[in-house]
Amino acid sequence: MEQVKPKLPRGMRDMLPQNMILRQYVVRVIQDVFEEFGFEPLQTPAVELEETLMGKYGPDAERLIYNVGHTGGRERLALRYDLSVPLCRVVAQYPDLSKPLKRYQIAPVWRAERPQKGRYREFYQCDADTVGSDSMLADAEIVNVIYEILRRLGFERFVININNRKIIAGIGQLAGVPDDLLGGLYRSIDKLDKIGLEGVRTELRQTGLGDAVSILRKAQVPKTLIAGLVEDLRGPDLDGVASKLRQADVEPETSADILDQLSALDLENRATIPEMVIERLLEFLGIEGSNREILAQLRQWLADYPDALAGVAELEKMTGYLETLSIPEAVCPVVPSMVRGLEYYTGPIYETIVEEPKIGSITGGGRYDKLIGVFTDRSYPATGTTIGIERIIDVMEELGMFPPEVGTTVTQVLVTLFSPDLVTESIQLARDLRQTGLNTELYFDDDPLGKQIRYALKKGIPYVAILGPDEVAAGQVTVRNLEMKQQETVSRAQVMARIKAWQEER
Amino acid sequence: MEQVKPKLPRGMRDMLPQNMILRQYVVRVIQDVFEEFGFEPLQTPAVELEETLMGKYGPDAERLIYNVGHTGGRERLALRYDLSVPLCRVVAQYPDLSKPLKRYQIAPVWRAERPQKGRYREFYQCDADTVGSDSMLADAEIVNVIYEILRRLGFERFVININNRKIIAGIGQLAGVPDDLLGGLYRSIDKLDKIGLEGVRTELRQTGLGDAVSILRKAQVPKTLIAGLVEDLRGPDLDGVASKLRQADVEPETSADILDQLSALDLENRATIPEMVIERLLEFLGIEGSNREILAQLRQWLADYPDALAGVAELEKMTGYLETLSIPEAVCPVVPSMVRGLEYYTGPIYETIVEEPKIGSITGGGRYDKLIGVFTDRSYPATGTTIGIERIIDVMEELGMFPPEVGTTVTQVLVTLFSPDLVTESIQLARDLRQTGLNTELYFDDDPLGKQIRYALKKGIPYVAILGPDEVAAGQVTVRNLEMKQQETVSRAQVMARIKAWQEER
Repeated sequence: MEQVKPKLPRGMRDMLPQNMILRQYVVRVIQDVFEEFGFEPLQTPAVELEETLMGKYGPDAERLIYNVGHTGGRERLALRYDLSVPLCRVVAQYPDLSKPLKRYQIAPVWRAERPQKGRYREFYQCDADTVGSDSMLADAEIVNVIYEILRRLGFERFVININNRKIIAGIGQLAGVPDDLLGGLYRSIDKLDKIGLEGVRTELRQTGLGDAVSILRKAQVPKTLIAGLVEDLRGPDLDGVASKLRQADVEPETSADILDQLSALDLENRATIPEMVIERLLEFLGIEGSNREILAQLRQWLADYPDALAGVAELEKMTGYLETLSIPEAVCPVVPSMVRGLEYYTGPIYETIVEEPKIGSITGGGRYDKLIGVFTDRSYPATGTTIGIERIIDVMEELGMFPPEVGTTVTQVLVTLFSPDLVTESIQLARDLRQTGLNTELYFDDDPLGKQIRYALKKGIPYVAILGPDEVAAGQVTVRNLEMKQQETVSRAQVMARIKAWQEER
Repeated sequence: MEQVKPKLPRGMRDMLPQNMILRQYVVRVIQDVFEEFGFEPLQTPAVELEETLMGKYGPDAERLIYNVGHTGGRERLALRYDLSVPLCRVVAQYPDLSKPLKRYQIAPVWRAERPQKGRYREFYQCDADTVGSDSMLADAEIVNVIYEILRRLGFERFVININNRKIIAGIGQLAGVPDDLLGGLYRSIDKLDKIGLEGVRTELRQTGLGDAVSILRKAQVPKTLIAGLVEDLRGPDLDGVASKLRQADVEPETSADILDQLSALDLENRATIPEMVIERLLEFLGIEGSNREILAQLRQWLADYPDALAGVAELEKMTGYLETLSIPEAVCPVVPSMVRGLEYYTGPIYETIVEEPKIGSITGGGRYDKLIGVFTDRSYPATGTTIGIERIIDVMEELGMFPPEVGTTVTQVLVTLFSPDLVTESIQLARDLRQTGLNTELYFDDDPLGKQIRYALKKGIPYVAILGPDEVAAGQVTVRNLEMKQQETVSRAQVMARIKAWQEER
């Protein structure tokens, strides 16, 4: 066989044992909580038909989907992009599954994103969803599940922001934003947390002017100058643009080129969001107070929009249930400016931000009552969340948040091997220790004892059982505690008890 | 969004909750045993560079590998075909990993095989391997791990057949089989179990005559006639072939066409296995006795072949260790005719056959001391096994081999919901039951009680906690045991104790 350099595809990674042990701990906690709430495991294949995935995530996302093929294969195949769309396919495909169907899936998904620190092309999602109930109990329960998982993992400062798609749509209608600008509007609003009210104002003023702004950016016009030109573009007043470019000493040739391109855009007929509407939107988004106060205010503002009022009523119920569950209101605030990117949400949406340690958004989710209908005539209401574990694991490792029993190895005891003629004794001791429930590794070679101990130290194995000729002759074992640097020679029958006692001291 | 029929790719499947619960039980048992022996978890990505996989499995296998791509991607990518080659890449890529490296990986692999009953294009492999030790303790331990897993899953009649690649090669040399026929030889020998000694004899006599036999098959010459022609083909004696075709009333035109094609084959210079050699091979393969007797006989026969003798010595050690481990010899016999398909094995090989229930081969493995060297100049000896769980799960389900606590749902209790104004009480009861460690589902809608009970029955939830107005007024809960058809009304504080008592009776 030809020698090949050992290498991974771009953006992929191996999870070596020390990392896997941490990962398994986090996954086990999440799985335990999911099952405590009655979510059942379900697994879909990594490979789906392309037609199952396409048209669900939007064109930007769908460019990141991996395609799959094989010799002689005629189907158009793809690696799954998330776990939600496959769930909807499953619900449509097996109509006999009991409803409500509460399922969880913990599995990798693949996206060909530009690799960067902490972002991989294969990563794990942990999803829990309830299909077939439109009760707000289902939505409140998802928030409860997230709360329980994060607390159990040791996180103390986090918020689960709650909003409702119907309210967001209502605010857009109330403010008078034209329908075709709603997408851009939501993207701008969603940045409130990062860029503040002033930043959102700037973005909203540019809504509908995307092409014009890119012409200016490509011509390398400075950002501050672009911001100054927005008023003229909104006019539109190309003379104003020309004069500002001149004042800013942009080269006449560049300037003429920019103006040519801008005239070709037909800015007269471009829809933009009127100033007055922007001011109203900012007023709505700046709303503050308790959940009860915010919802009361929204109820008043949105009185003429029945759909939006239904959204307010949903959040009233949901926050009421969260109160019954004793989840502090500070942990689950209603935040009218929170938007989730995916277009299929139809009701409550939620997003978890871990504030300390500062890792940002780690869950996203919401209600999607229409998505299953894409696969079948009989649709079902559904709600659920995705928990991303990659950043959780990284941060827990950095901050030492794992409990002490989660070490660098699964092995608890190393049994040494003195020489080939004592191998029988070592084999039998290892077997006996395993039978008492201790994860036990037998050292395979009769290397010097020092080398065997160093192996245990390097791996982080806490206890070593040493069997030399003296011990074998006396029916004894020398047990060493590498963490506490203690050693004792005990009878074969006492080895287990000695180790258990050390484990309890730990 | 356009409506799409919910459908899976050919050969792929969903694992619905009831199946996943069984699967998780089997995986947990395997994982527990792996960890008891000190194997550490390791996970590689599903997608590898094509060059990592190609040239390792042979052309027939490699045609089944799925290729992967994405918009703008320049790498040639593929879905992993097994877990062994990725392990070798990992060992070469991270030279600092402590040796011996004992790792396990439980993960899906993908092969575009022709789908048929019980065979899927995505299936799980459970691998345990030890890298960096040439001790036969490592090989014996792998057999021990398989033995422990199957016993713990409840299998009683199975054998782990043991052989050694060096012995197989030695038998070939001893019998005088030309090197270029060894591949065909091994494939014939491996069928001993299925086709018996006489079948192997027929196959061996046809070795080297593949092209001639296919010409006869394509011309639709009956099988028995082909067997009768082999002697003439081995001659070669084409006149003999012609006369036998005539006697069998093959049409003259067909017959002439066959003879033309056979003459073009240059049968004179085709190597075949001489009769005497075939007889000797069959004698070797027919060997019977205890492991000690078989190995003594092989030692005598192979006295002039030092490599083969090294293989005998390896099995002597390995079977000695298995004896020390108290694994009955009947469970791990030395079977000189057992061959494993993969070409990269270099020492002991092993294969598990479950005889009752009859599911055939469920593990394959062996020592591959050269494979890591394909990725790096510093190679390491390695040995390990793959356990296939798909058939294990199917058979355990068919025969009811799962313990009673592995049910059809993870949920232990359903808390009913009487009406919207009693929702607070139901929420709180569900929360309290979860806190005592019971997996508890809250029913979300105030459907009639009968419907709620039927939901629990359909899912297989064993206990239902009923909270109606009477119960709430009296601070009580009615607890129903659906399996034993019993019901009791107890105080809120006693619910948990009542259910625990039932669980213990179970």
